[in-house]
Amino acid sequence: MKTRKPTTSAARGSSSSSPPSHTLPLFSNMPRKSSLFKHTLIATVFFILAIYAFFSTFFHAPLPPSDSDSDSSSSLLDLGGVSSQENPIPFPEKVKVFMYDLPHKFTYGIIQQHSLARGGSPVPDITTLNYPGHQHMHEWFLFSDLARPQSDRLGSPVVKVTDPEEADLFYVPAFSSLSLIVNAGRPPGSASGYSDEEMQEQLAEWLTGQEYWKRNNGWDHVIIAGDPNALYRVVDRVKSAVLLVSDFGRLRPDQGSLVKDVVIPYSHRISTYTGDFGVKDRTTLLFFMGNRYRKEVINRLLQNAFEIDVLVEQGGKIRDLLFQILENEEDIVIKHGTQSRENRRAASRGMHTSKFCLNPAGDTPSACRLFDSIVSLCVPVIVSDSIELPFEDIIDYKKFSVFVETTTALKPGYLVSLLRKVPEQKIIEYQKAMKEVKRYYDYTHPNGTVNEIWRQVSQKLPLIKLMINRDKRLVKRELSEPNCSCLCSNQTGIINSLG
Amino acid sequence: MKTRKPTTSAARGSSSSSPPSHTLPLFSNMPRKSSLFKHTLIATVFFILAIYAFFSTFFHAPLPPSDSDSDSSSSLLDLGGVSSQENPIPFPEKVKVFMYDLPHKFTYGIIQQHSLARGGSPVPDITTLNYPGHQHMHEWFLFSDLARPQSDRLGSPVVKVTDPEEADLFYVPAFSSLSLIVNAGRPPGSASGYSDEEMQEQLAEWLTGQEYWKRNNGWDHVIIAGDPNALYRVVDRVKSAVLLVSDFGRLRPDQGSLVKDVVIPYSHRISTYTGDFGVKDRTTLLFFMGNRYRKEVINRLLQNAFEIDVLVEQGGKIRDLLFQILENEEDIVIKHGTQSRENRRAASRGMHTSKFCLNPAGDTPSACRLFDSIVSLCVPVIVSDSIELPFEDIIDYKKFSVFVETTTALKPGYLVSLLRKVPEQKIIEYQKAMKEVKRYYDYTHPNGTVNEIWRQVSQKLPLIKLMINRDKRLVKRELSEPNCSCLCSNQTGIINSLG
Repeated sequence: MKTRKPTTSAARGSSSSSPPSHTLPLFSNMPRKSSLFKHTLIATVFFILAIYAFFSTFFHAPLPPSDSDSDSSSSLLDLGGVSSQENPIPFPEKVKVFMYDLPHKFTYGIIQQHSLARGGSPVPDITTLNYPGHQHMHEWFLFSDLARPQSDRLGSPVVKVTDPEEADLFYVPAFSSLSLIVNAGRPPGSASGYSDEEMQEQLAEWLTGQEYWKRNNGWDHVIIAGDPNALYRVVDRVKSAVLLVSDFGRLRPDQGSLVKDVVIPYSHRISTYTGDFGVKDRTTLLFFMGNRYRKEVINRLLQNAFEIDVLVEQGGKIRDLLFQILENEEDIVIKHGTQSRENRRAASRGMHTSKFCLNPAGDTPSACRLFDSIVSLCVPVIVSDSIELPFEDIIDYKKFSVFVETTTALKPGYLVSLLRKVPEQKIIEYQKAMKEVKRYYDYTHPNGTVNEIWRQVSQKLPLIKLMINRDKRLVKRELSEPNCSCLCSNQTGIINSLG
Repeated sequence: MKTRKPTTSAARGSSSSSPPSHTLPLFSNMPRKSSLFKHTLIATVFFILAIYAFFSTFFHAPLPPSDSDSDSSSSLLDLGGVSSQENPIPFPEKVKVFMYDLPHKFTYGIIQQHSLARGGSPVPDITTLNYPGHQHMHEWFLFSDLARPQSDRLGSPVVKVTDPEEADLFYVPAFSSLSLIVNAGRPPGSASGYSDEEMQEQLAEWLTGQEYWKRNNGWDHVIIAGDPNALYRVVDRVKSAVLLVSDFGRLRPDQGSLVKDVVIPYSHRISTYTGDFGVKDRTTLLFFMGNRYRKEVINRLLQNAFEIDVLVEQGGKIRDLLFQILENEEDIVIKHGTQSRENRRAASRGMHTSKFCLNPAGDTPSACRLFDSIVSLCVPVIVSDSIELPFEDIIDYKKFSVFVETTTALKPGYLVSLLRKVPEQKIIEYQKAMKEVKRYYDYTHPNGTVNEIWRQVSQKLPLIKLMINRDKRLVKRELSEPNCSCLCSNQTGIINSLG
């Protein structure tokens, strides 16, 4: 919305009618002989002015774009605010997002299934159910944000609209990550009848049947698939949408990319460190707690649902090798442990009392642990060569993380000696940098992760609109390769970022 | 900028102090016995209200961002305006552009060479020379725009800065297209000693030696290479920059793409049609004037400077075939003709008196003719399967162009019968749509092509910043394929857009 400019006539009218400031004493110290007529006149002028100004101030709806150039008052073009010859705005106004009112089986129904699989009782109104906490609960935060009335979310970078005709983008709030773990960790045979795969198929069928999906082949849709395995069966049918993902570990280049999609942080699971900067209370040099063997865990989780790619095995092997190299160093704490409340408490303690926190690749390049490290002010040591990081256009991770190339990190003694050399002052710099960015990893912060995700999504709109217009006029071609536009990195890479 | 909302107290204050509407007769029909005190009181209240409302209405400067969150007033982050917890701005403020003060041999020196090669005399001050008009003179318009003082260009989507430290982007205003034609069309043996290739080498050497180029490996640089052959020798050394190009016909996918670069229109060369919509004065069904044989022309132009790719031969063959099919139809005008003032006048007449204008691929998929057609309100018939179009995020070319797949267009009788069926009303719709967008192809319009190019460039900034941050922390990897992020089209294509 533009700040309203006074129209020439209004400005002229008020500057001539409004009293100069030296008339003020007239009222506070009014001579008793003034004629009633004069007062009436003055009061009337003020009254009209007051009424005008009152309505202008408190009810000023945005003016329709005043457009002196007939070329630009265009029904043809979606000009995103570039509507005036005098006053072009380089960027569009806030992007308008419509959230689908999905059938409950894709949202609250999944919470219910998750609860039932854990011995919960059916409830009369499933929309009263609480979404269970886990590292991919970002889908809940985004859903909750858009479920609020627009009047409650004025600070958001996107506007929620309830009429799909007004929307720039369409959000699909399926709980795809929760669906994946409805039966996770249940003993064999005890699984409920729930099938994540059926949910995926039904969702894809429902979505691709929607009028607004078909209109632009899904390009203007936004789908959350936070868990690297979420929606794996149907991603080919919905890949033209902007995917909100943790990484691209399980996506082919034509399914997901930094250009089309948005990398979102995990929802961190351990408590924020509230103490001072420094290393006084951080007696451990390097801390890690997590699964030593990834493949086994993944197999259990997915119940051999689909082919596990080579990355998992590599990630698993590397973790095991790192354990072997590091577990006997005296100032390093490296522990095998799976997700549990007790282990989370231990991890929290460990991260709050360590200078560095190890972040190896897991079953995919990303992991929740990175965001735990940041809120713990424990300098992340990232040993994950293919990792993609959230919000990297505004966050320079080198300012608070140490990146180490994997094969180098596996050289005995290398990591320890590298980290021991980092001076305290440098660690404090890293910690300060982490404190500056930590709100970006906080889904509950009023200007935290949720807002930043919407801002990132908004930035995709020009490319989305380009693809929509271009796709509709592309003619049939016999191409030997997919028709892709790419952004390629030319650089050769570092060994470690402490160089 | 947001419209200011009333604060709670102000709103409450005025709703209780402002008079209900039935008090209006009090003033127009006031009883003579009313006490002066009462009048004074009422007038005072209105006066205060008027003063408050007056200032609120006419002087409401945007509030300074009120930032209660220490996390967000960050020196670490370039937040692009997202600086307030209450008030995030989804898009950055205007992007800041620094224009290099290039050595004259890359700018005015080329104009001089072009003049000398045509018998011009040396002048004492080469900055007084006029840039010669040609279809790639966009480099002159962008240079001139940024050469103006910032105070003259407040309507621009980008801010010019004179301190490179403040810049988001760096513009390299070399006259790369003019350089290419310094000796073009000169009889053999008469060429001046000027070498475009030397200029290219010198430019690449100068640029890649600059501190700000090296800082971010060129990602934040913008280079104009409008002629499809401009900078061909050195594009590999400068490809990480945002390239301003006419198409990607001579660029490999890792050198240029819709994602990284900006497609800019040719500078149209024929006069704008100023008559009415309709077909009354458009007696020709389809018009084309241009080179029938491309390869020959290109060879002459480039003086066998480099390998001419297969596209040229194809483009040439297709043109010749189109000539054969169309030249005997009675309401079709199709003429062989090269660039000359006289031919431009003839083309102008032809385009102003035809319903449709043929736009076949030339030596590359794009051609100046498309933009000539648009300003002539002559519906473009685009027979160029790999064409990329400028500003396609905001311009839907299907609304005023007919796209026809090449092999279909070559079927005898197909094009003519397709176009004859288009009703007059449809042609008028196309014409209206063209009139709405024509300022985007006008480099001299105050809110025309130049502004739109800067807006397009601005939209690249988030991806540029991401690539800058990411490149610096990427570790060494052995990749079998280039490290690219892509946006791929999934659609199968149309035969013609009139379907």
